[in-house]
Amino acid sequence: MRIAFDAHGGDHAPVAVVEGIRLAAKEWPDVTYILIGRDPSILPNDLANVIFKHVTEQIEPEDEPVKAVRRKKDSSMVVGCQMVRKGEADAFISGGNTGALMAAGLFHTGRIKGVDRPALAPIFPTLSGRGTLVLDVGANPEAKPQHLYQYARMGRIYAEKVLGFEAPRIGLLNIGTEEGKGTELTKEAFSLLEKESSLRFIGNVEARDILFDACDVLVCDGFSGNILLKNTEGVAKAIFERLKEEFMRSLSTKIAAAILKPGLKRFKNSMDYKEHGGAPLLGLMGPVIKAHGSSDARAFFNAARQARLFIDRGVIPRIIEDLSPKKGEDNE
Amino acid sequence: MRIAFDAHGGDHAPVAVVEGIRLAAKEWPDVTYILIGRDPSILPNDLANVIFKHVTEQIEPEDEPVKAVRRKKDSSMVVGCQMVRKGEADAFISGGNTGALMAAGLFHTGRIKGVDRPALAPIFPTLSGRGTLVLDVGANPEAKPQHLYQYARMGRIYAEKVLGFEAPRIGLLNIGTEEGKGTELTKEAFSLLEKESSLRFIGNVEARDILFDACDVLVCDGFSGNILLKNTEGVAKAIFERLKEEFMRSLSTKIAAAILKPGLKRFKNSMDYKEHGGAPLLGLMGPVIKAHGSSDARAFFNAARQARLFIDRGVIPRIIEDLSPKKGEDNE
Repeated sequence: MRIAFDAHGGDHAPVAVVEGIRLAAKEWPDVTYILIGRDPSILPNDLANVIFKHVTEQIEPEDEPVKAVRRKKDSSMVVGCQMVRKGEADAFISGGNTGALMAAGLFHTGRIKGVDRPALAPIFPTLSGRGTLVLDVGANPEAKPQHLYQYARMGRIYAEKVLGFEAPRIGLLNIGTEEGKGTELTKEAFSLLEKESSLRFIGNVEARDILFDACDVLVCDGFSGNILLKNTEGVAKAIFERLKEEFMRSLSTKIAAAILKPGLKRFKNSMDYKEHGGAPLLGLMGPVIKAHGSSDARAFFNAARQARLFIDRGVIPRIIEDLSPKKGEDNE
Repeated sequence: MRIAFDAHGGDHAPVAVVEGIRLAAKEWPDVTYILIGRDPSILPNDLANVIFKHVTEQIEPEDEPVKAVRRKKDSSMVVGCQMVRKGEADAFISGGNTGALMAAGLFHTGRIKGVDRPALAPIFPTLSGRGTLVLDVGANPEAKPQHLYQYARMGRIYAEKVLGFEAPRIGLLNIGTEEGKGTELTKEAFSLLEKESSLRFIGNVEARDILFDACDVLVCDGFSGNILLKNTEGVAKAIFERLKEEFMRSLSTKIAAAILKPGLKRFKNSMDYKEHGGAPLLGLMGPVIKAHGSSDARAFFNAARQARLFIDRGVIPRIIEDLSPKKGEDNE
């Protein structure tokens, strides 16, 4: 098994990527790790099972995604997605420019037949610790009902195989729980999902219930999903900043805060999506994983764990089997 | 000045409504309060400046909004909206069924000419304590670009007159800050807002920056706004539940938590949108305010404060002046 990493993806690259590979190589010595980058000197000598793949370009966070992917043909991101397509790597992990990774995946790894639009599918941490797979969070801002239906089918497979959820409960993000709520998009998606007997569709789910484990897989258009993801980040950040302020108010609150620190830390970690690895781009012809931009070594290590399961459990063949148009059918 | 209250709106009605009126009557004895309800005995004898308006019906939280408003013509909600239309009340406050209040407002208070769709506009608490007016959060799930443009103009007037914001910064909710991001809706709304020189339009705002005071007025379609509102509620609730768990873990954490309690309470209050009153339904021919379903006496008192400013500062005439089609124009 060969897992490729983008040396130039993420705020702490390449150091965090290299250190993440070090942790992974120790845990899973049977895997070959491929580090794709511009400068071979970033690869320490003491790392076993790691191959350096040299490229001449890199895509920057501020690059316009589609343009960058078209122009920078020898960038780590484009080459990584191509390697997956050609079978030179079994998975590719990047913490770089999200839009560019989606474009590179679409152009260079390719789309599964029967999937109209790939979806970015991170895990939202939930109170139970179980987590909820949410798709799409921005690969496709202007979704159609059949896209949401396809997300549900792909999400279900990924949740079963990689997350180990049995018969995952599929929810549709909406502004009320009753049938008939929302927009034309959610109404039509609801009726498509309801008809599909292979899915355990539980109906509409409201945003306030997500962190309380209302469902295992939540489908939504990329615009709403992105709002949801960033709002969750923002609210948590705002609350922790204000808490910190209250804790620093006096000597006694500082002492009290010190006593509570381990618990608070445990709690913060449980809310940290980096613990769950990255977000797969579902609907591509191979495993491509978007690691968070702020990923540290541990986050890249977790993404490697995720990639292993993604490959081992045959998620891609299963999605192809499930979604590709059957003989005589044409759902393209 | 006459402010009407729905005796049958909210989880703690009618007691919280009556007690809210008691607080308001003490603070503003110059106002006449009208309590609209089915049972006159809920009105205590010791309350001055309060008139009881008798109705025979009430709309329930689980009622289908449009149907309920059509059928229950003598409900507190329908009568309250009619009183505003007829000038028998200067404002109406209800903590009841949100959808029904929007329908009652539209049918019985009426829409301002030049406003295609009224918007529900609550204040989101922000870190600075200032707050951000967000519209729409669900009155109109399927918005068009000109609706968002009209929200910006109405929101600006309300924010200036009621919230006291000088030249409020208008933001457009989007999935990236750069121009050209998002959906057809946000792209077209962006170009309408950018052209309007009377507005201080600051461009796209991402969900993660809202609580950090990225703008003073945030416009969005009702679907996204509703997701934003409910997600903010859900994330805050989940975090506080987990914190409580950590605080109850042992004797020492319990003691530490007791020391931090006043600060935590202050913090929770600052995040409580009930402190800001209710959400106005902007675009109607009179002040109609939706109080939160869980409103207590203090929340109804704050809604009365808000209604006073709404009336006193002439928000409705100003919106009519600003948005109504000028002679020779027709923007209906």
